[in-house]
Amino acid sequence: MKKVRTGLTVPGFQFAAVKCGIKYTNRLDLGLAWSEVPASVAGAFTTNLIKAAPVVISRKRARSGMARAILVNSGYANACTGRQGYRDANLLTSGTALILGAPAGSVLIASTGTIGMTLPVEKMMNSLPALVRKLNPKTVPDFIQSILTTDTFPKVVYTRKAIGGRNVTLLGTAKGAGMIMPNMATMLGFVFTDLAIPSRLLRPIFANAVADSFNRITVDGDTSTNDTALCLANGLAGNALPRGRSLSQVESLIGDTLKELARMIVLDGEGGTKLVEIMVEGARNSREADLVARTIANSPLVKTAIYGAEANWGRIIAAAGRSGVKINPDRVDIWFGGLQAVRSSQGVPGAQKKAVPLLKKKEIKIRVNLNQGKARATILTCDFSEGYVKINAGYMT
Amino acid sequence: MKKVRTGLTVPGFQFAAVKCGIKYTNRLDLGLAWSEVPASVAGAFTTNLIKAAPVVISRKRARSGMARAILVNSGYANACTGRQGYRDANLLTSGTALILGAPAGSVLIASTGTIGMTLPVEKMMNSLPALVRKLNPKTVPDFIQSILTTDTFPKVVYTRKAIGGRNVTLLGTAKGAGMIMPNMATMLGFVFTDLAIPSRLLRPIFANAVADSFNRITVDGDTSTNDTALCLANGLAGNALPRGRSLSQVESLIGDTLKELARMIVLDGEGGTKLVEIMVEGARNSREADLVARTIANSPLVKTAIYGAEANWGRIIAAAGRSGVKINPDRVDIWFGGLQAVRSSQGVPGAQKKAVPLLKKKEIKIRVNLNQGKARATILTCDFSEGYVKINAGYMT
Repeated sequence: MKKVRTGLTVPGFQFAAVKCGIKYTNRLDLGLAWSEVPASVAGAFTTNLIKAAPVVISRKRARSGMARAILVNSGYANACTGRQGYRDANLLTSGTALILGAPAGSVLIASTGTIGMTLPVEKMMNSLPALVRKLNPKTVPDFIQSILTTDTFPKVVYTRKAIGGRNVTLLGTAKGAGMIMPNMATMLGFVFTDLAIPSRLLRPIFANAVADSFNRITVDGDTSTNDTALCLANGLAGNALPRGRSLSQVESLIGDTLKELARMIVLDGEGGTKLVEIMVEGARNSREADLVARTIANSPLVKTAIYGAEANWGRIIAAAGRSGVKINPDRVDIWFGGLQAVRSSQGVPGAQKKAVPLLKKKEIKIRVNLNQGKARATILTCDFSEGYVKINAGYMT
Repeated sequence: MKKVRTGLTVPGFQFAAVKCGIKYTNRLDLGLAWSEVPASVAGAFTTNLIKAAPVVISRKRARSGMARAILVNSGYANACTGRQGYRDANLLTSGTALILGAPAGSVLIASTGTIGMTLPVEKMMNSLPALVRKLNPKTVPDFIQSILTTDTFPKVVYTRKAIGGRNVTLLGTAKGAGMIMPNMATMLGFVFTDLAIPSRLLRPIFANAVADSFNRITVDGDTSTNDTALCLANGLAGNALPRGRSLSQVESLIGDTLKELARMIVLDGEGGTKLVEIMVEGARNSREADLVARTIANSPLVKTAIYGAEANWGRIIAAAGRSGVKINPDRVDIWFGGLQAVRSSQGVPGAQKKAVPLLKKKEIKIRVNLNQGKARATILTCDFSEGYVKINAGYMT
C-alpha cells in the first residue's frame, strides 16, 4: 500500500497507533489523536437508524463543543452489541481520558469493522498505556493506518494557508473502501487543525462541508451503522476570529479538504475501476435533482454498463424514470462528457459509438438535463466490476 | 435451452412466431397470439415514467375491456423512439388487424429489447402475412420463444380446472432475465384462458394477482420502460358467471399462475444463482414492511453475501436501518430459514456458522421481525454473482 508522506504535523496535535490484535494480528488497529489543548469540535454521523455504540456516544459528546482526543479502532464496528457495546466504548474512552488526564467526556471514539461482535475490551484496555506513550506530533501515518480496512490507499489532505493574519495548518484523513459496507462498515473522516474558531462557528461550516462532500458520494447505496466525520480545531494558530473574508476562507479550506477526501474514497470504492460524476440539472428543485442523480448513481445496470464502457443511455433514462421524481418523459437530454447522446429523450444518431472512448477513461462525467427548472445536483460514484462481487461475497471468510 | 412441452392448447387461441431478423438473424423474434372470438382483457403496465410506445398504446386499448390479439417482438424495445415509435407500433397493429379482419383497436402490442432504436418496421410489416398464416392452436412454444431475450429457460404455467361446472384451461407465460434491465428491457407476462368472465370482474382479479406476484420480485431494483402483463379470457369454456366460491377459484387460478411465473423469473434472474425470499414481519403497516423488504432485497451487499453463503446479518440489519422506515433499532430479530441469527438486534452466538449450510442451498428464506406491529410483506429476489456484472457490462457488444 502507498505510504503516507512523513513529516506531516499540525501544531498541538499528537498521534499514535498500536497493533492490538482486535481482529487480525500484526496490524495497526487501535489509534489515538490528541490535542494538547481543548479543541472546538464539530461532528457528522450516520443517518442509519441502526447506530453503533461509538456513534451514539461521540455524537452526544461532540454536542458539548469541546474535545481533546479521538480513540479509533478497526476490526470490529461495535454495532449491534447491545448494552455491552456502550459499556465497552465508555470504558475505553474513560480509560484513555484517565491516562491522558483529561475529562472522560472529552474523548470521542470511532470504530469500523464487522457488525455484531463485541470488542476484545480487555486486550484494548491493556494497550491504552502503550498507545498514549506513543503519542507524537509526527505519528500521523500510523494513526491513519489504524483506521483502514479494505482501503487500497490511505486518504490524506494536508494544507497550510494564511487566515486572519496567521498560518493555519489543516490535516484531513479518511477511510472508505465500500463507501459504506455495513459489515466491514463505514466511512470515517477526521480533520485536525490549529485554526482558532469557536464551535458555534465551526459546526455549520463543517455540516455544509460534509453535505457537499461525504454526503454526495455513493459506492453501493448502503449506509453504514458507523459513519463518523469529526473536526477538531485547537486554536493554536492564534488567528483572529474568522469573519467576512477570512470566514469564507475557512469555509473553502474545510470544504475543499472534505471534497478531496470524498473523491479519494470513491476512487478507492470497492471493486470500482472508474470515477463517475453524475450531474443532474434542469430539475424543479435540488431535492429532485439529488434523487434522480442518486437513482442513476446506484443503478447496478448503469454501473455495470460504465464498467463495460458502454454508452447505454437507455439504462440512465430508465433510472431517471423510476426515481420517483415526476420527470417529463419526452424532454430528457443526456451527455457523456461533452458528447450529447440523448436529445428530447431520443438517441442522437452515432453518439453511442462515439462515446465509447470517453467511457474507457478513468474519470467519466455524465450530465442529465431534465429541462424542467434550474436546480442541479452532483453525485460521485464508481462503476461496478466483478471485483465488487468478489470482495463482498468473500469478505468474512 | 429447455424446450416448452408441446401439445399445450387453450380452446379458441392460436399462436405463431416467425424469424423476422429484427436485431439478430435466425431467431424467432416476432410473435402473435390470437383469440378466435373477442376476449375480455385486463392489463398491468410499467410504473416507469419513461414508457415505451407499445406500453402507452396497449394500456389505452386494454381499457376498452376487449381484445383479439397480442403482437410481440424481441430485439428492440421501441422505447425512447419519439413519434416514430408510436407511428411504428400503430402501423404494426393496424396491419395485423387488417390481415386478421379484426378492429385495429383490438390488437395489443408488447416489445422487449434495446432502448432507443426504432423498429425495422418495413421488415416487420412484410413478415405479418406469414405470421398470420402460421397461426395454429399448437404453436404455443414458438410464441413463447419469440419473447425471450437473455432468459435461460422458457417460463410456462399450464392448468386445467373445473370452474362453474366447466373445465377451464389457463396458459401463463413470461419472460424476465434481469427482472428488469432497461436495455434488454422488460418483464412480459401473458395469460390466455377460455374462462368466461366480464372484464369488469377480470380487471381487479388480475390487478391483485400482479400485485402479489410480478410486483413482489426484484432482480436489481431497476424498473423497465416496457413491463407489460396481459390477460385474455375468451369465454369459450362456457362457465357460469364466476361468483362466490367460483370467483375465489378464479382468483386462486390466476393468482397462483402469476406467482409461479414470478418465481421462475427470479430463478432465472441475470447472474443469480439462488432464489431468496425476504419476509419482513412485525411492521406497523404493510407499506413499511414492503419498503424494508425491498431495501434488503436490493442491497448489493446483502446479495453478494448470499452469493458467498455468508450469514452476514449486519448487512441485513443495516439495510433495514437505512430503509427510511422508523424501525426500533434495538428490537430487530433475523432468521435464516428456521435458524435465529439475531435477537433484539444482537447476534445469537454460534448462529453465523450454523447458517452457512442453509445459505449454500439453492432456495433461501430470510425472515426479519421488526417487532413493531402485525403487518408483513414478502419479496422474492436472487443473489448477485460475477455473472451479473459480466452479462450487464458486455451486453451491447
